[in-house]
Amino acid sequence: MAPTFADVQAASHRIRPFVHRTPVLTSAALDNWLGTRAYLKAEHLQRAGAFKYRGATNAVQSLTDEEAKHGVAAHSSGNHAAALARAAATRGIPAHVVMPESVRAVKRAAVLAYGATVTSCENTPESRAETLARVIERTGAVEIHPFDNDAVIAGAGTAALELCDEHPDLDVIIAPVGGGGLLSGTALAAHGRQSDVRVLGAEPLEADDAARSLSSGARQPPLPPSTIADGLLTGLSDRTFAILREHVDTIVTVDEPSIVEAMQTAWQFTKQLIEPSAAVALAAVRSCELDGSRVGIIVSGGNVDLDAMFASLR
Amino acid sequence: MAPTFADVQAASHRIRPFVHRTPVLTSAALDNWLGTRAYLKAEHLQRAGAFKYRGATNAVQSLTDEEAKHGVAAHSSGNHAAALARAAATRGIPAHVVMPESVRAVKRAAVLAYGATVTSCENTPESRAETLARVIERTGAVEIHPFDNDAVIAGAGTAALELCDEHPDLDVIIAPVGGGGLLSGTALAAHGRQSDVRVLGAEPLEADDAARSLSSGARQPPLPPSTIADGLLTGLSDRTFAILREHVDTIVTVDEPSIVEAMQTAWQFTKQLIEPSAAVALAAVRSCELDGSRVGIIVSGGNVDLDAMFASLR
Repeated sequence: MAPTFADVQAASHRIRPFVHRTPVLTSAALDNWLGTRAYLKAEHLQRAGAFKYRGATNAVQSLTDEEAKHGVAAHSSGNHAAALARAAATRGIPAHVVMPESVRAVKRAAVLAYGATVTSCENTPESRAETLARVIERTGAVEIHPFDNDAVIAGAGTAALELCDEHPDLDVIIAPVGGGGLLSGTALAAHGRQSDVRVLGAEPLEADDAARSLSSGARQPPLPPSTIADGLLTGLSDRTFAILREHVDTIVTVDEPSIVEAMQTAWQFTKQLIEPSAAVALAAVRSCELDGSRVGIIVSGGNVDLDAMFASLR
Repeated sequence: MAPTFADVQAASHRIRPFVHRTPVLTSAALDNWLGTRAYLKAEHLQRAGAFKYRGATNAVQSLTDEEAKHGVAAHSSGNHAAALARAAATRGIPAHVVMPESVRAVKRAAVLAYGATVTSCENTPESRAETLARVIERTGAVEIHPFDNDAVIAGAGTAALELCDEHPDLDVIIAPVGGGGLLSGTALAAHGRQSDVRVLGAEPLEADDAARSLSSGARQPPLPPSTIADGLLTGLSDRTFAILREHVDTIVTVDEPSIVEAMQTAWQFTKQLIEPSAAVALAAVRSCELDGSRVGIIVSGGNVDLDAMFASLR
């Protein structure tokens, strides 16, 4: 059975002792650039640097002691790995993370710093899945999928729940979409609180499988993506696709130059280091010309490849 | 007569309706890296993006109606220009800013957006001074110097005053030093509130005229500087030198790689876009090995040349 608004509310209660209630930021200059009134739910200031910590925490804290005793496991090249490692450490259980060898050293170091065990694999879906299966067989750990998991989806929705509680009169709420976990949770939370709010997704044009899935009515596989928004490469699952079909109005696609421009503009005006995936949502809002609407934007995280950007300064 | 702690208190009261009371940020990861407990006074979140707005506002709001009626004027290539333009707009008086032609377009645009009149000059001290003199003669505007001005110094000190009020048990307080206005105001505020707090300055090794001035006991001219911390190029004035001699323990100098490393680390851990001049203070704290002390750091602003950094993404 699909997760519900009640699951998001329960998740919010469950994870409250462990997560930051992130601020909602506004900027008159950014509003002027976006052509709307934007309320930024600042998940780049969340623990472990992204909204992912909410879902990982909800999943980890939902386990019974019996389920939790051999720890948790996932494959991830990004934010979910760090989030799960930290969530497991908070509960005092092991975390086993499978990461492609190609992952940037700083990401691997973050996961190790939270005390997780990292197993390397090749950067193919097959190698990830096989390696994870072996790890689980060996350890008895419970898999926590980064988005195809009801507890993770409900946890991800708690960001939107907090946003809607603070700003109960939003016209639109928007989140970036990769695997669809964040957007699914956001939609459940938003429509649970306020049935008439319009829920939008934001996706890179170069990784537009969710947009194609919704417009065709059949789940489409991701094509080999080539986008700066490296958090949004994954395709939907049946679970997230079903939720998005029911709740999401449109998925807005934006090209790469728009994403980079939105990221630089947001940095300039807010002095906040938001990640490319979050900039996708800002670029989508700008492209929509929402003209003075009150728009809630889930700023997914602050995961930026600073090594590349600082190279020009060294 | 030099400005006093009472002037800082009066400034704080005067500018309160116009400035943000910026938050004080902490980060366990950053503390670990710095080897201390750091309290970051987040002036990058100040209006116009830097502490400069405090001093400019205090100066503008201190004018009588008679003094203010022909507006204010300054030469500046940086944050003071934007701050003064905005402060003047808030009072509804003209601002005349002299800027070198070489200034980045984004800086000029910011000043123009606040409604100031911009007069271009060559990028030499002589051309700046002559052009400003002509503007003042023509307009009757009052010059507001970026740091060699009691009201500006007192206004700059209000950031430290707020920091000390929130954290009355700091062992050390540190601010970057260019012309010395921020450090002077910081020292007056800190010693006014708490006579035993140690006041440090932070300066790029490549622009270390303040450090040389304090250690030699005679004001030293700035050598042609070459530092990423482009807010700290200026030399001290007699006014700021006198205040620093009385109040400042040491000026810590840091090399360019340390500044860049501190900036990247701060961005990584706090997700806040702090400018190179603020990174100078962080690098100085790290180099001092203050070992668990409680250190207040004035994060001067968020003025970063993003065009250069984003070039790698385009």
